[in-house]
Amino acid sequence: MERMAQMRDRLDRLKANKWFESFVIFIIVVSALLIGAKTYEETSPYESILRWFDLGVTLFFLFEISIRIAAEKRTRDFFKGAWNVFDFIIVVASLIPINDSEMVLLARLLRIFRVLRLVSLIPELRMLMGALFKSIPRMGYVVLLMFIIFYIYGAIGSFLFHDVDEQLWGNISRAMLTLFQVATFESWATQVLYPTMEYYPLAWVFFLTFIFLNAFVFLNMMIGIVLDVMQKESAAIDRETGQGRDVALERLQEQVTGLNAQLTRIESKLDKR
Amino acid sequence: MERMAQMRDRLDRLKANKWFESFVIFIIVVSALLIGAKTYEETSPYESILRWFDLGVTLFFLFEISIRIAAEKRTRDFFKGAWNVFDFIIVVASLIPINDSEMVLLARLLRIFRVLRLVSLIPELRMLMGALFKSIPRMGYVVLLMFIIFYIYGAIGSFLFHDVDEQLWGNISRAMLTLFQVATFESWATQVLYPTMEYYPLAWVFFLTFIFLNAFVFLNMMIGIVLDVMQKESAAIDRETGQGRDVALERLQEQVTGLNAQLTRIESKLDKR
Amino acid sequence: MERMAQMRDRLDRLKANKWFESFVIFIIVVSALLIGAKTYEETSPYESILRWFDLGVTLFFLFEISIRIAAEKRTRDFFKGAWNVFDFIIVVASLIPINDSEMVLLARLLRIFRVLRLVSLIPELRMLMGALFKSIPRMGYVVLLMFIIFYIYGAIGSFLFHDVDEQLWGNISRAMLTLFQVATFESWATQVLYPTMEYYPLAWVFFLTFIFLNAFVFLNMMIGIVLDVMQKESAAIDRETGQGRDVALERLQEQVTGLNAQLTRIESKLDKR
Amino acid sequence: MERMAQMRDRLDRLKANKWFESFVIFIIVVSALLIGAKTYEETSPYESILRWFDLGVTLFFLFEISIRIAAEKRTRDFFKGAWNVFDFIIVVASLIPINDSEMVLLARLLRIFRVLRLVSLIPELRMLMGALFKSIPRMGYVVLLMFIIFYIYGAIGSFLFHDVDEQLWGNISRAMLTLFQVATFESWATQVLYPTMEYYPLAWVFFLTFIFLNAFVFLNMMIGIVLDVMQKESAAIDRETGQGRDVALERLQEQVTGLNAQLTRIESKLDKR
Repeated sequence: MERMAQMRDRLDRLKANKWFESFVIFIIVVSALLIGAKTYEETSPYESILRWFDLGVTLFFLFEISIRIAAEKRTRDFFKGAWNVFDFIIVVASLIPINDSEMVLLARLLRIFRVLRLVSLIPELRMLMGALFKSIPRMGYVVLLMFIIFYIYGAIGSFLFHDVDEQLWGNISRAMLTLFQVATFESWATQVLYPTMEYYPLAWVFFLTFIFLNAFVFLNMMIGIVLDVMQKESAAIDRETGQGRDVALERLQEQVTGLNAQLTRIESKLDKR
Repeated sequence: MERMAQMRDRLDRLKANKWFESFVIFIIVVSALLIGAKTYEETSPYESILRWFDLGVTLFFLFEISIRIAAEKRTRDFFKGAWNVFDFIIVVASLIPINDSEMVLLARLLRIFRVLRLVSLIPELRMLMGALFKSIPRMGYVVLLMFIIFYIYGAIGSFLFHDVDEQLWGNISRAMLTLFQVATFESWATQVLYPTMEYYPLAWVFFLTFIFLNAFVFLNMMIGIVLDVMQKESAAIDRETGQGRDVALERLQEQVTGLNAQLTRIESKLDKR
Repeated sequence: MERMAQMRDRLDRLKANKWFESFVIFIIVVSALLIGAKTYEETSPYESILRWFDLGVTLFFLFEISIRIAAEKRTRDFFKGAWNVFDFIIVVASLIPINDSEMVLLARLLRIFRVLRLVSLIPELRMLMGALFKSIPRMGYVVLLMFIIFYIYGAIGSFLFHDVDEQLWGNISRAMLTLFQVATFESWATQVLYPTMEYYPLAWVFFLTFIFLNAFVFLNMMIGIVLDVMQKESAAIDRETGQGRDVALERLQEQVTGLNAQLTRIESKLDKR
Repeated sequence: MERMAQMRDRLDRLKANKWFESFVIFIIVVSALLIGAKTYEETSPYESILRWFDLGVTLFFLFEISIRIAAEKRTRDFFKGAWNVFDFIIVVASLIPINDSEMVLLARLLRIFRVLRLVSLIPELRMLMGALFKSIPRMGYVVLLMFIIFYIYGAIGSFLFHDVDEQLWGNISRAMLTLFQVATFESWATQVLYPTMEYYPLAWVFFLTFIFLNAFVFLNMMIGIVLDVMQKESAAIDRETGQGRDVALERLQEQVTGLNAQLTRIESKLDKR
């Protein structure tokens, strides 16, 4: 029993060790480069080495996550952290033996996600990701509004320009993709607007209103989010710095109330005589 | 009389019912997908089903808006809300029977706007739209200034480059459209600037001043709007949090004035003796 | 003498008249449309009418500016306002009789600038322009820094890629224009980077560092300007709302000092007895 | 000994002289234009003049930096300033005699960097550069996060689309360059997405998620940085303006405590009698 606690303590120290952490980051980067290297045409002499290295990385990751699980008092505690679960899935996924030649691609794709372990290891990136996740609901409704705009313009576009270019406006999903292209300003005039204007000279109204509406919603969203977050921050700062002042004011008021009581007593004493 | 009030009450509850609202949203989304589906080539077996479904959605929307109108004490009250009027127009517009085959397109377009009812139903989207409408006057003058810039450059461009490319610079409206293309950076150098520079080697002055002027006005506008809104918000926050402090200061002052009166009384009593 | 003052008074009222101002705006817009119309192919029946109208507008503008000059007590005062001088130059420039057929283009260009009189007439646009002018020095140094970046990259580019594409990298000015095209992301990869990489496979280092440097400077500038202006504004607001509180605090302190004096007197009276 | 101090004093004055500084800036600009001129095809008559001028500029820069070094009490002090070291390297680098015709290009490139001396000479540009350097760590982690996104998408892209276009997706580095092109919206739809969709109709999922993820991270970063800097600034302002008020409140409290002591004394005196 005591031996286990001792070992857990040793594992805990290993986990927290800066050198060990740096070594894990190094292995992740090397493993990522390995995946990158595989995208180049492989010559036979290196292939077997790479395969052995890949196996080594997989085993090392298994070892590293085992240590981290063992370092916890209860295994259940490990799975409470979202980042731990994230790491666990990535490690386990790359363990699945895939012999089927058609599934090799999937196995490789799973190994790419090992790079994401960098995010769970580096605290600054973890904070950044946290901030990103927090901003999702704020952005959600704007994306919904944009989707409605795209949908309406897509439907109108596919009805009107159906015969101009089947490839661009053939159906509503194609039309929405074309509108996304227009929204990114990619060849929107030369490839989309001008050919359409040859059949419908007023097509520019459709495109310009779409672009302006998009830009307008996007701009307002940007400004809205900046102000929204800013307001909260500045309110928080104000509360913090203000609190000290509020407390000081309250204390002053109490003191003055004390003075008032004192004076009332003095006055009554004078009256009594 | 009492029966009507009872029924209105029941309708009121139905209107406010979360499940009913979700069902309406569901119907809107399905109806939108229906319109989208129509943009794909229709095969005969599905067409009649879609037509019946469309009729069903139209009738359901009529039923839903009737309930909402009936739930009001006075029908007039219903039309006071801008969003209600908006809903009413969309529903009524899709009721108009259009048999003329040439007008079928218009009828379909009107039905697309049903998707906009999502905006009037979801409170967050309604708030977003409200914020957008509020920012229109603020943006209006910037758009006017930009239009003046476009107009002047368009006129100059159509005078100067008339003979270089009739398609791009033929008249002022074509020139302004070309300038809008330049402002979005779409093929502005390879398709517009370089061909023009073969005839007028100094044409880059025209385009670069235009791009810089535009970017300059746009940037200043962005910054201006951010600061404008921010100033109002931060002033509002200050007033709010400040008010508490101002009230506290005022009360303190009153208390101190009270002390002063007390002391004056005590002093006069001492003097009297 | 009295008659002149009387007339000046009448002119003053005319100048300030809302209807007169609206009429001037209307004439400016019509005159602008006239210039725009000239860019379309003119058919003979309308040409003479347009010419007469143009003469009319020119004379009206002369009349309007004469009124405004006459309404001033001293003619010199009129020329003190920058916007007045601006109006005067535009009006006078369009008066110059140009018969030389080659100079007709210049005459027309001068008339385009009449649209700018909208800016001097509408107060909101005048304010916007004022804000723009104020931000010029702030932006100046950033533009200078950007120019240095462009110059260095332009020189390097024209040395390195001289032989790849004479059209794009022939000399430093051509190279800088190409870099501007790259900075706007217009066909930068397909037309500039990829053809260059066929000769210099490491050319992407040149382009990516350039793009990142530009984006980096631009972003920092944007943030810098926003913060710069914001800081000034928020300091101004703080001073304003703070002043009231500072005054209240000062008054409190005075009152408390008064109480102190009173108490000291009371105490000495008690001691005397 | 005294003579050296006298001379150093004179050099110090020369260094600080506005005219001398302006002259140095003038020489830098001329030298930059000279380099620019060399990128044009040189005609023989001018070439020798340019060569002599170049020698003159090199010698002048050597003279100028010698003065600045001599003006310091200890030569070592000169090399403590980062900008001085920067200037020194640029000047010395252009002194290296290069006769090898193949190295001429390198020599020229080194001379281009002379323009950077403008940055070290103009205080506003030096401040701007300082602000840029300060923002590097803040931006670093965002760039790392973006790199991870690019790496994962690049690996997936090169696995999936390897056979569609060898040029664009041949290996991971090519794929990442293609993704950078997509991120700048350059021909991303017409040249990259649409050809890919002919083989993989669902390829739009890959590209749209990539674009949204990028835009999302970029937007959040922008907002994050603005708020980060802003928070610090506004806290600094608050502290400054708040301090005065805090001091006033503290003094008030002390005064009121004084009153309390006075009253206690008065009360005890009354009681004693």
